[in-house]
This record gives sequence, structure tokens and C-alpha cells, in this order.
Amino acid sequence: MSSGATTLKGQPLDKPVLEAMLRRRMFYTPSFEIYGGVGGLYDFGPPGCSLIANITDIWRKHFVLEEDMLEVDCTVLTPHNVLKTSGHVDKFADWMCKDPKNGEILRADHFVEAILESRLKGDKEARGQKVSEEEDADPKKAKKKKKAKSEAIKLDDAVVQEYEEVLARIDNYGGPELGELIKKYDLRNPETGEMPSAPVSFNLMFQTTIGPSSNFPGYLRPETAQGQFLNFAKLLEFNQSAMPFASASIGKSYRNEISPRAGLLRVREFLMAEIEHFVDPEGGKKHSRFSEVEDIELVLLDRDTQLSGKTTTTKVKIGDAVKSGLVDNETLGYFLARIHLFLVRIGVDTSKLRFRQHMANEMAHYACDCWDAELFTSSGWIECVGCADRSAYDLNVHAKKTGANLVVRQRLEEPIVVEEWQVDIEKKKFGPLFKKDAKAVEAAIEATAQDKREALAKQLADNGKLTIDVEGIADGKATVPADAIKIEFRKRTEHTREYTPNVIEPSFGIGRILYALIEHNFWTRGTEGTDEARGVLSFPPTVAPTKVLIVPLSSNAQFKPHLKKISQRLRSLGISSRVDDSSASIGKRYSRNDELGTPLGITVDFQTLQDNTLTLRDRDSTTQVRAEEDKIVEAIKTIVDGSKVWSDIESTLPKFEGQEVEVVAR
Amino acid sequence: MSSGATTLKGQPLDKPVLEAMLRRRMFYTPSFEIYGGVGGLYDFGPPGCSLIANITDIWRKHFVLEEDMLEVDCTVLTPHNVLKTSGHVDKFADWMCKDPKNGEILRADHFVEAILESRLKGDKEARGQKVSEEEDADPKKAKKKKKAKSEAIKLDDAVVQEYEEVLARIDNYGGPELGELIKKYDLRNPETGEMPSAPVSFNLMFQTTIGPSSNFPGYLRPETAQGQFLNFAKLLEFNQSAMPFASASIGKSYRNEISPRAGLLRVREFLMAEIEHFVDPEGGKKHSRFSEVEDIELVLLDRDTQLSGKTTTTKVKIGDAVKSGLVDNETLGYFLARIHLFLVRIGVDTSKLRFRQHMANEMAHYACDCWDAELFTSSGWIECVGCADRSAYDLNVHAKKTGANLVVRQRLEEPIVVEEWQVDIEKKKFGPLFKKDAKAVEAAIEATAQDKREALAKQLADNGKLTIDVEGIADGKATVPADAIKIEFRKRTEHTREYTPNVIEPSFGIGRILYALIEHNFWTRGTEGTDEARGVLSFPPTVAPTKVLIVPLSSNAQFKPHLKKISQRLRSLGISSRVDDSSASIGKRYSRNDELGTPLGITVDFQTLQDNTLTLRDRDSTTQVRAEEDKIVEAIKTIVDGSKVWSDIESTLPKFEGQEVEVVAR
Repeated sequence: MSSGATTLKGQPLDKPVLEAMLRRRMFYTPSFEIYGGVGGLYDFGPPGCSLIANITDIWRKHFVLEEDMLEVDCTVLTPHNVLKTSGHVDKFADWMCKDPKNGEILRADHFVEAILESRLKGDKEARGQKVSEEEDADPKKAKKKKKAKSEAIKLDDAVVQEYEEVLARIDNYGGPELGELIKKYDLRNPETGEMPSAPVSFNLMFQTTIGPSSNFPGYLRPETAQGQFLNFAKLLEFNQSAMPFASASIGKSYRNEISPRAGLLRVREFLMAEIEHFVDPEGGKKHSRFSEVEDIELVLLDRDTQLSGKTTTTKVKIGDAVKSGLVDNETLGYFLARIHLFLVRIGVDTSKLRFRQHMANEMAHYACDCWDAELFTSSGWIECVGCADRSAYDLNVHAKKTGANLVVRQRLEEPIVVEEWQVDIEKKKFGPLFKKDAKAVEAAIEATAQDKREALAKQLADNGKLTIDVEGIADGKATVPADAIKIEFRKRTEHTREYTPNVIEPSFGIGRILYALIEHNFWTRGTEGTDEARGVLSFPPTVAPTKVLIVPLSSNAQFKPHLKKISQRLRSLGISSRVDDSSASIGKRYSRNDELGTPLGITVDFQTLQDNTLTLRDRDSTTQVRAEEDKIVEAIKTIVDGSKVWSDIESTLPKFEGQEVEVVAR
Repeated sequence: MSSGATTLKGQPLDKPVLEAMLRRRMFYTPSFEIYGGVGGLYDFGPPGCSLIANITDIWRKHFVLEEDMLEVDCTVLTPHNVLKTSGHVDKFADWMCKDPKNGEILRADHFVEAILESRLKGDKEARGQKVSEEEDADPKKAKKKKKAKSEAIKLDDAVVQEYEEVLARIDNYGGPELGELIKKYDLRNPETGEMPSAPVSFNLMFQTTIGPSSNFPGYLRPETAQGQFLNFAKLLEFNQSAMPFASASIGKSYRNEISPRAGLLRVREFLMAEIEHFVDPEGGKKHSRFSEVEDIELVLLDRDTQLSGKTTTTKVKIGDAVKSGLVDNETLGYFLARIHLFLVRIGVDTSKLRFRQHMANEMAHYACDCWDAELFTSSGWIECVGCADRSAYDLNVHAKKTGANLVVRQRLEEPIVVEEWQVDIEKKKFGPLFKKDAKAVEAAIEATAQDKREALAKQLADNGKLTIDVEGIADGKATVPADAIKIEFRKRTEHTREYTPNVIEPSFGIGRILYALIEHNFWTRGTEGTDEARGVLSFPPTVAPTKVLIVPLSSNAQFKPHLKKISQRLRSLGISSRVDDSSASIGKRYSRNDELGTPLGITVDFQTLQDNTLTLRDRDSTTQVRAEEDKIVEAIKTIVDGSKVWSDIESTLPKFEGQEVEVVAR
């Protein structure tokens, strides 16, 4: 086993067993499998689909409804110029190289990492040291390509140290440096023995053409964020100009991975849920509801600890983390705590949750601070939620490019008096003086900084004219006579303040969360008299794909009306159920539904026909109670809405034993 | 006004007024507007987003949960070979031509239609006949391009007749015919006076490349259906091999329109909800729940009526329509009725709903019968739901291409004895005889039809050998000696029956439904003492974006705790509300929310502070009641869950008059 991951009950996680079960129960499945499949594309079957719907539903309630966020749904198709401005056309790329012999395309950083690690492993073997197959807690490991087989060859001590230093800095290298490392260490593709070509940049966006002419390129968005930024002015107006506020969006995004692997953890098409919280950059980015969360304890792994080469986490109250400056501001802290609460609510194992701060070289091009909520899985620590402070980067670049007014105008309670150098231009004289250049000259003068204007005023007073650089006109310079311009140090009263908001962005990868959630809730229980271990997914009832399994004791036609009545009754309460009247034994049918994570099971038997009582079974303990239909339905309702747990039901309704003979679990 | 569409109250629909309101309230907005926008792409703002969520939620309950459909979520990215097999690469195209002068790209059929119609209009003007600006009930009109201005020029009677015949058949013409019509009638682009180039086929799928190498082309799916078909075998297994069953999917699809127009009605990226109901083709495609819907009356426009050039509809019970053969089978009829019920449930105006049967030349390449649910709007009758019988087309082509086993194996209650010509091949002898061609020869023999085998048996008996054509081998023929093969007429017992299911596909365009729903629920009411007409959207409470508006009488801080308490209480009941504590008058705030379609409004005033009573306002009548908080909350709950209507509330709670002085509506 390649991990230290454990199941819910502390058993070592047997990943092949789990994967076979997920395939068998159609949680998800490789897309286009009958056509040979396509890397990084997965379809979700009924239980996976339902899990996603339940997780996003809880997300919407937890974030959007709870805080009156403005949900938007923007298009995936995005024209080139938008993503050029945002920086994605130039910077959203990985380095790739090609094997000259078999044409295999390799992601350069993963290639260097894999070969050096296999040499270090070979060295350990040669030195007779124990080689651990386990992945350590390094989050980078999850994306690593592990096909390089090690040979037991001893390296010089100095070489070992050099390799280790390179690996520690692997995320720091650009393409040229990776190319140099490949040459310097003579790194060869184990498949062919060849050295791959020099790394070239590969943009990770899927490109297409919008409309019938070929000159309108576009991309599939790499994040939902840009659509939200472009609608900022309309959203602010919709919000009646009140600040702060947040927009939110749930939708697909795309990333053309060079070589996708690791199932749902690195895919080319994925569902994201993103929040863009717009906040005044002045006043320390306070949050009005911070007091509600300040005592919540988070497990943090900060930047300094990582720089010192360690992964030691500390458990800190978020209030203290903000106070000490470890987390920059209240708004960022508020969302870290809210993310924590969301993850707990959907059922992640908190002992496998930490918040890791990005190192400076690791952040996306737009971010000025970022914490990831990471969940521990059999592939190591996986980034599942990012919480970045994007500052005013995006609104600024789009405003600059388009001239759109992406700012907040705030009426000042008390007008401010500003004393500064002010320019008065006699526009009537500029026309005749500069002809077609008049506008450019005006703009150049208006654009002069305060600290330059005093000198200009002096020039004007001394010479009766001033000369100024003007880009894009014939001479590159213009001379303005004193009768066409005035520059004075004067007072001005401002009644409004204009600012570009900063953006705090919690961004959720739903597929990754889903996968981690499955691992965190998986365990197996033995079957009496056999070696067989049957899988169970102990999802919380709110998250479980189906809430209730309804099974008739046998396929006797007498049971049918009862089955229909019960399922209609549950449906009218908004509780999803499924009837299994197949010919398999009751034990087998329950066991199948334990694999699907169905928390409750109802049995309809011959006694039901006489007295309208039913049995209710708990997935996790497999214990059962028996009572009249109304009581059973009431019990189901309270468990599904979270107001009661199974032990409450067990203590009020009579216990039932029988039926489930072949799965005497625990 | 270019339509006969009316508002909910029978007023003529003033489309510019409605559109301005939808923009102002951010129901939807052109995407990338600050970058100049992109045709056919729209973003949904908070109310639009909420409408979509509510409509799809009802859809899921009405179809997926009600009938235990298997919901799947497949990828949008689809490799070339899948869509090549399905026929979309070759057939999912429109004809386009280009203006040689200004480079404008025109959709050929729309161009021919527009020019001929403008000539006919000019003829009418010249003859002094009344020219109606109204669009008639022809569904094709909605997609028409109407920029050709008419000139009053009289045409010969024969020419008029010829043009009219061409227009009646416009959907029948392919590219070459459209090109001939352009030449024959000298059709010129009014913008430039030029004749456009010959029509070329333009595939409507967005193309991209999957992965880093350029030799793996893919498309954005044009429908969600293909992903469901490809998963058929897994879904059948998930369903424990029980038939019939349906899969369902809600997701984005794409269509690279040549020149998108008409707002949400013709867009390049759109949300679809599709069901694929798999049914045994034998036994008349019965449906077990047909009796539940057979008395539902639908408004039908059948194929024969349309072929006779009329649009007269008939109101028929679906049971009778199936009995008479007007609707082909029970399963198709069942879904037509269920679609009708769904549309009624979300609030469409049934007087603006009809089901139109496709004409033979109009159907998609995969369909063998198709009815569209059309909704009448200011753009004419719009196809909003298609209900096609795709027969076994898709499963067959994918099975043939991939070799996957996309069939149902049904255990026969009584085994069937089949008597037929059977071939026994001595495989051991074929190897030495035919070497590398052995497999091909075997396959050629196995593939011989029953009616050929008797002759082959005779040949073998007569000559001691037989000669057979084998494609792809050296000679194109193979000779098999009698000791290597046996052909006999024998009995065989079959215990299972194998068949490829047929597919009935109800397919919903959510954006189009949303737009029609808005028009169907829009009306205006006057404001006393002014000419102003204020918009109201009378959505059913289940569909309305927000259920309750909460307004304090003024911005007095005393009201704050009450506002918070009420909104938290509603939230805990799952009822969405919004507080408007802006400084606008109560009347203005209510009026703003009438535009958003919020059905209920609560006012918190000074009396509330004393006795905890609230007023509750009905959006449609603007009447109010006043009662203690618990009673008001109970009233809201029953209206939102649909168990009561406003008149029930009015008859039990005391009426309240006051507050809303400036909007004395009705």
C-alpha cells in the first residue's frame, strides 16, 4: 500500500478494494470507456451524482443563503482578450518535454522529481537502508509521476545532498532551469533510455473558436472567478451599492492537464464552487461576523514552518491566529473558519484536515496570500479548498484594459479637504495649439504625479511656458504657453471616496472533496464465518446519496402495496428512498446498500401486513428497531434532518433481532 | 410591436419594457459586456440563477425522483470518434455563405427566407394591401433574420406564388439548392448589394484538442444524451438488469450558432435537462403508469395538419391520441403528458402551450418520431421541450463501432425452439488451411444470412467444397473443403432473448423555458396619479427566486433584531428571504420586489416592537393581513409549499390597510 491512510475505523486503507467498490456501485467511472477512455475525464453515476448534489446543496445553504451572497452563473466559453488580461494566457501553463524516441509527452517538473527520487531510493537500497513505500505528508507527492523504477546504485554523499536540495525546491524552477537539471544530471526516460527535449511552456486552457469565422479565439474557463469579476459593477448595483458583499458561483471549469492521473484528484473537467467576497482594503479587512467564529480551533501549517523544511502543524483558535498576524486579517480568518465548519458538516474526518499557507513562490499569479484546506488521503495531503486574497488584482487589470469603472464610490460622512497641486487646462486654446494631439497632451498633463507638479509650476512661472513628454505624438514632447494652463497649490473638498475592493476568494474543488470524503467515511466489516470484508460508507445522513432502503422480506406480491405506500410517504417528506425487491437475500441487499452509504433500512415483512409495523436498521451498527409505521417515519425524519442520532432512536423504540442472519457484523 | 404576445393580464406585451426590467433586475445579462460582449453568451444574475435552480429542482422531483430515474453527470468534453459515430461530426451542421464585400457571414436558409419575405412584403405594399407587422404562428419565424427592408415593388402573380412555395419548403433545402435559389432569384445582401458566396456546410460543434499533443481532437457536446448512451451497460447493471428504466442528466451543452440572436432563445451555451428512457421495442412500448395520465388533455398540432399548410390545433385526451395512433405509443404519450404537467407546475400559461409533431424532413438524423412542446412568446411559438423516439439508433451505432455489448439479455419464461441453418467450423483445420486469413474466412462464413446457407450446404454436398467471398484477403475468395465445415438445418433452444432497447428522449432547454416563463408571468399595473406602469412577475411561489421580502418601516436601528430573527426563522424552514432596509419608501421597495417576482412581503413596524405582530403582503393583489409572528410564519409556509393560496390566508387572518400609500395598485 502506498500510503499511511486509514479507514474510518483505523484499519489500513486498502485502496484497490475501495476502488473496485466505487466502480461496482458506479460512484464514478472513466468517461468514454467503451471507446478506450480519455485521461482525466470521469462520469458520475447515480450515487456520485447524488453526493455532488447533496454537497453543493449544503454548500449553498452554508455559504450563499447564510450570508445573502449573490449567486451568478456565467458562461464557460470565454473570449481570448478576457483571459489575456487576467494573465491566464501568459501564465496559466506547465512545462512539458517530449521523448525523442517514442514521442511521449512528460510534465517536466514531475519527470525531474520522479527520476531523482528513484535514484535516491536506489542509493538507500545500495546502502542497505530501509526503503519506505509510504508517502510522507508532503502535499507535492500526490501529483508525482511514479513510474521510474529504482536500481540499487550508491551515490556520493554530496550528490545525495544535491538531489535532496533540488527536490525541496522543485516548485521554484521554471522551464529553462528544469532543462538544465535534465542535462546536468543526465535524466533519461526509463521507457526509452532517451533524454527528453528541452521543456516548452504548455498553456493549460482548452482553446476553441467562437462563431463561424476563425478569428475569434476563446477558451474554456480555468476558474469561475473571471465571470464574477466582469459582472462586479452590476452586482454592486444589484446589492444597492452596499459593501462588503460576496458573489458566488457553482460550475464546471477546465484544465488541459499534460498527463492526468490519480483518479478524481487531477482531472481535466471539474466542478468548482467559488466565492468572491469584495471588501474595502482600508480598515484592516474586518468582518462583522468574525466574533461568531473566533473561538473555532484550526490546524494550521504556516509558511515559516514549511520554509524550515518541516510539516509540524499547530492547533490555534482563529481569533488568536488573526490577532498574532499568522492569518492576515479577519475576513480571511472568517472564511477559513467557515470552510472548516463546512467540511465538518459534510463529514470529513477532522484529524485528516489541515490549513496550509502557500509559500511565496507557490502562489498563483494573482494572489497575495493563500491558505489551502488540505485533506489527507491515500495520495497524501490534497488541496481541496483554496482561500486566496487576490487583492485588487483582477478588478484593476480589467478596469485598466476596458475602461470600465470597477470601483466603489463611498459617500463620506465628513467631507475631506485635500490640499494639492491642481492643473487647470484652457481646453479652447489646446485645440488650435495641438490639433489632433490636443487630447494626448491634456492626458499627459493630467497624469503628472503630485510630486512633479511643483516643478512644472515653477517652470511655468520662470519661463512663461512648460515642456512635457507626451507619448505617441510626433516630437514626443509638447510645449504649453502660460496662457493655456494654470498649476496651483489649492484646497479641494471631497464628498466621496473611490476605491477598488479587494477580493477574498474561497474556492472549492467539489470532485476532490468528494473523493476525500469517500475515503474518510470508508471502512470494512467482517462477515461471520468467512474471510470476506464488506465495505461500508458511513456518510452523514444529509450527504448520503439515498437516505432509506426499503426491502420486502421476499418478492411476494402481497408486499408491493406497502412498498409503494412507504416510498410515496417518504417522497412527500422530501426523503429519497429506493426499493430493492430483487431476489437476493436481505443480508446481501443490506450489504449492497452499506456500500452505497444508505444510512437507514426498512424491512417490510409478514408482520407488517398484520399490524403495520416496520423494522428500521442502522447502517453503522446494523442494529434494528421495530415499531408502527408513523413512529418509524418520524424516526427517519429526525435522523435525516440531523435533529436526532441513532442512539436516540434505539433508546425510545423497541429493539428488533432477526432477519439479518448472514451479516452478523461488528 | 412585432408580436401578438400578451401579458398575464391580457395586455399587449411591451417587450422593450420587459427587457429593460430584466436587465435592471439582473435576471440575465450579456456575458463579457465590458469587453463588448460575445453573441449568444449570457450570464445569469441572482434572480435568474435562483429561477434556474428552482426549475431544475422541480424537474428533478417531477421526473427523476418520481420515477427512480438514474441520474448521471457526464463530461462536456467529448472525443472526436464518439461524435463521429453518433453522426454529429457529419450531420450537425448549418449552411452558411459569405458576403464577398464586407465578409459578413450569413446563415443561408435565414438569408433566403428574409429576402424573399421582404420582396413579398414590398409586393403587398405596392398592391396597396395591409402589411401585418405581426408574426404569425409559424414556429420558424422565431429564428428568422429580419434585417431586409422591403421596397414597394409589385411582383407578377406567378412569382408571388413561386416565392410562397419556396418559403413553405425552406427547411427542405440543402446547401446546393439554397445556392441555386440565391442565383435564380438574384438574392443580394441589403447591406452591400452583393450576392453572397455559395453555401458551405458549417459544423455547429465547438472543437478543441484534448491533452498536449495536437492529434486528439474533441468537441463540446451538443447534447447530454451521448454520455448516457455510452454508460448504458453500466446503468443497466446498476439497475440490477431490470427494464424499462431511464437515465437523466442536467448539464451544459454547446452549439456554435452562425449568428445568434433573440436573447436567451438562441444561444451558444445552454443548460439542458435530458431523459433517456430505455424500453423494449417489442410489445408496443407500453408504459405501466400510462393509466395515471390517460385523461390529461393536450393541445396537439399534428404532422398532417402542418403538411396541409395549417396550424389548427386540437385538444385531445392523451389516452385517445394513443388509441387513435396520432401519438405512436404509450411511452411517448406518457412523457408528453408528464411534460405538460411539469410545465403547468412551474407556471406556464397553458393557453400558450402546444405540442407540435415534427415533419419527416425536419427531424434530427437520429429520430424516428418527435413532438415538441412549444411555448408562445413575443418571438412566436418556441420549441422548449423535444420528445423524440430515437429508436435504437444510438446504441446500435456505438455498439457496432466499439464492439461493446449494448443490449438487454432477457431470460425467457418459456424457452424458444428455433429451427435454422447452422454452421459448424472445424477451427483446427482452418489455421493450416488459411494461415493469417483464417479469422477473416471464419467471420465471413458466420456472417452469411439464413437464406444463403441452404445454397452453400448444397454446394458443399455437390462439390465436396464451397467457395465464399471474403473481403480483405488476397484473392477476395476462399475455398473450404467439406472436412473443415458442416452446414445443417437443425433445431436450437434459446433460453434468453437479446435486444437493443429503444430510447424515448424528453429533452428540455432550460433557458428557453425560463424566458417563456418570464413572459407568461409578466404584467404591469398602473400607479395612481402617474402614467407609470410597474412590472410584476407573478411566478408561482415554488418557482419565485426569493419567497419573502422583509422590510422595516424605516432604517430605525430598533428594527434590526426583529429583521434578523424573522430571516433566521424563515431560513431554518428552508424559505429564502431578503431584507431590504434601504432608504427607499416602502412602496418603492415593494415595487422593486414585484419586479423580482417575490410573492410575499413582511413589514416590521413600530407596532411589531410592542406586540410582535407583522403584516404580510401578497404580490399579486397587494392586499395585506396582520397577525402575530407565529401565524404569519405558518401562512408563509403553507403558501410556499403550495398547500394554501392567498385567498385562504385572507379569509383567516385580519386584513390590514395602510403603509403602502403610493402604490394603490389594480
